[in-house]
Amino acid sequence: MAKAKANAIVAQSGGPTAVINSSVCGVLQEAAKCKKIGRVLAAHNGILGVLQEDLFDVSTEKASTIEGLKRTPSAAMGSCRHKLKSLDQAHADFDRVLDVFAAHDIRYFFYAGGNDSMDTADKVNKLAAQRGYELVCIGIPKTVDNDLACTDHCPGYGSVAKYVATCAMEAGRDTDALYTHDTCTILEVMGRNAGWIAAATGLAARTPEDAPHLVYMPEAAFTWDKFVSDVREVYKRLGKVFIVVGEGLKDKDGKYVTADSGSFAKDAFGHVQLGGVADMLKVVIEKEVGIKARWNKLGTNQRAAMHFASLTDVKEAWMCGAAAVKAAMKGVNDKMITLVRAKGDKYKCTTGLAELRDVANGEKKVPRDYINKQGNHITEACRRHIGPLIKGEAPITVGKDGLPVYVRLRRKPVEQKLAKYI
Amino acid sequence: MAKAKANAIVAQSGGPTAVINSSVCGVLQEAAKCKKIGRVLAAHNGILGVLQEDLFDVSTEKASTIEGLKRTPSAAMGSCRHKLKSLDQAHADFDRVLDVFAAHDIRYFFYAGGNDSMDTADKVNKLAAQRGYELVCIGIPKTVDNDLACTDHCPGYGSVAKYVATCAMEAGRDTDALYTHDTCTILEVMGRNAGWIAAATGLAARTPEDAPHLVYMPEAAFTWDKFVSDVREVYKRLGKVFIVVGEGLKDKDGKYVTADSGSFAKDAFGHVQLGGVADMLKVVIEKEVGIKARWNKLGTNQRAAMHFASLTDVKEAWMCGAAAVKAAMKGVNDKMITLVRAKGDKYKCTTGLAELRDVANGEKKVPRDYINKQGNHITEACRRHIGPLIKGEAPITVGKDGLPVYVRLRRKPVEQKLAKYI
Repeated sequence: MAKAKANAIVAQSGGPTAVINSSVCGVLQEAAKCKKIGRVLAAHNGILGVLQEDLFDVSTEKASTIEGLKRTPSAAMGSCRHKLKSLDQAHADFDRVLDVFAAHDIRYFFYAGGNDSMDTADKVNKLAAQRGYELVCIGIPKTVDNDLACTDHCPGYGSVAKYVATCAMEAGRDTDALYTHDTCTILEVMGRNAGWIAAATGLAARTPEDAPHLVYMPEAAFTWDKFVSDVREVYKRLGKVFIVVGEGLKDKDGKYVTADSGSFAKDAFGHVQLGGVADMLKVVIEKEVGIKARWNKLGTNQRAAMHFASLTDVKEAWMCGAAAVKAAMKGVNDKMITLVRAKGDKYKCTTGLAELRDVANGEKKVPRDYINKQGNHITEACRRHIGPLIKGEAPITVGKDGLPVYVRLRRKPVEQKLAKYI
Repeated sequence: MAKAKANAIVAQSGGPTAVINSSVCGVLQEAAKCKKIGRVLAAHNGILGVLQEDLFDVSTEKASTIEGLKRTPSAAMGSCRHKLKSLDQAHADFDRVLDVFAAHDIRYFFYAGGNDSMDTADKVNKLAAQRGYELVCIGIPKTVDNDLACTDHCPGYGSVAKYVATCAMEAGRDTDALYTHDTCTILEVMGRNAGWIAAATGLAARTPEDAPHLVYMPEAAFTWDKFVSDVREVYKRLGKVFIVVGEGLKDKDGKYVTADSGSFAKDAFGHVQLGGVADMLKVVIEKEVGIKARWNKLGTNQRAAMHFASLTDVKEAWMCGAAAVKAAMKGVNDKMITLVRAKGDKYKCTTGLAELRDVANGEKKVPRDYINKQGNHITEACRRHIGPLIKGEAPITVGKDGLPVYVRLRRKPVEQKLAKYI
């Protein structure tokens, strides 16, 4: 770095998780120890905040608030799904990012997000190099989908995994009690392209009677015939059926299964518009198996469920944030922090580094050997992989009113220095 | 009682809750102290198990399992929604109940359920009197809907209230972070006729910025025009909207609001079949307000969420179970245990008694003064009423695998003595 002290910026991107604030906390607490870092600014609502020069000064937040981020779900700095215009087509967006960085003497960019964010960070970094603007870009992995390449798993996943497995267990007990009336329950979880979240619910099935009895992931080709036959088999054996399904179900060609695919579905749906995958399965089950089915859709609640988050996940998320700052101080650039699992039976996890570009271009799906031959549940190998990630209960603060206390940042605005862009 | 010792039966009915097992635990632990009670039997799957003579002997369960019921959601004995044939039309079902009771020398009937169950218990009791069969019937209140008459509130409600309020808070934080993309979130909760569950989410709104911003209950007449205007107002003020809605929305005539009611809805829906109320609201919001909306439907997970249940609720549920046995020992009959709130600012709750008939015929909705004038949120009076019920976090056991440990009863069958009935 040219100067002794330069400013840093932290931004959060994409779908929030229970622990992305913990990663930010790791950045802030580690940055506070670094003499080379002056002020730490935050982008309000991710890269959108950078484009809008909507920044706030994290240095003015109380230490207790920063510490409270470890126990606060979602993205306290604000996030976005804003996609920058392509670097090839037009430099405008990326130029603007560097203009804003330069205006505030920002030389460190810590970006917590998924593969799109790593792509952005990489491109910003490359453009900075072209312009001769000294900048260090370090990515921090974040996604409940757990589908990032180059890392053993992603911060955010352990918590959603623990929560959805618990939900499968609890709603499963409900079905156990009321199966003479509500014989089948479907739990719809997130995961349009990768089945990691659905897979995690498989951990709840400690015995064959336990829910879930069937788990469908996008990685295993779905057919309506097989599905109906699966449900009939479980119903015959147990007199009840508990199913978990990810948002995305795909056929053998990788196409999303929709209402007009397959004979059962065609018959059942007619011209009906559906509420979602779970609703689609319900209609087919009631028509073809002849048992009453109902469904739950956890939606955004699953990725925000701090009240029963994984302590392992919270700690690793913090570790990734702190590691990002340490790496930057050591002169590392254009990398994402990864989680590296030690070999052997005892779970141990440290951090590593991956090229931003490799993460941006990659995707990690549930491997076939984590899914059983039938394509309707997880294997022991999968249990061994996911199991350690959900261990430990993250502490939260509960108020006198019986509800969690989550912090809010003050978000003291940084004075704008540039003309309005968007 | 004619004899020094007679048997008791316990049954659970209707939709499970997080704490109905705690009530059963109260019955069993109190009954164990009573010299007048011999064996305690359980009906497998509620009154259906009685009709089928599908009983099991609770005396053979381990004490640790019984104690574990306090920390186990749903109905461990099994529940049902089986409706007995009317007493006026045909005695058959009720005669069968008494035949099964007589065959097993059952003289105490403890029935945990809602108003239908209290109706059943009352009718069984009256028929027993006609037949000269000595029987004591005591009801134990249970319902997440909190709509039972004669009791201040219902065991089961405090836990669902704590959980849905937490869910509103957490999904609300998700919306806070991603409002530039997903501007509106709808949380659909249970409650087709009574808005108590939706009302509880109002507790999460500690400040005007906090979710939920709008809460719709069946007790406040719903119109599409007003709804769209509400959403527009919140969006204008905060740039985001978090809505909670019960399953049931009713117009001023008490009719359920459907897709073809009201001009906005008519335009928006065409011939579309809907996934539920939340989906219906989403379609109207996107069309009329022009902001993206998404929704979560907690379904059965809300009534089974032992992992963040109210300690107050768990204790009161246990207290109701124990009080049922104590009352029976004192010669009380044909009554349901009620929860009685002491007057004054400090919350204190004891048990009382109500006629089974009065509970069977009653229903308790959210009073108008608990809903604001706009009909879109709760009042301070409502907060004061619900607030104490969600206090305290019920302890659960979490296994080494990071997931809750919930008990299962062994359910050792009692030998059948009668011919098959159904």
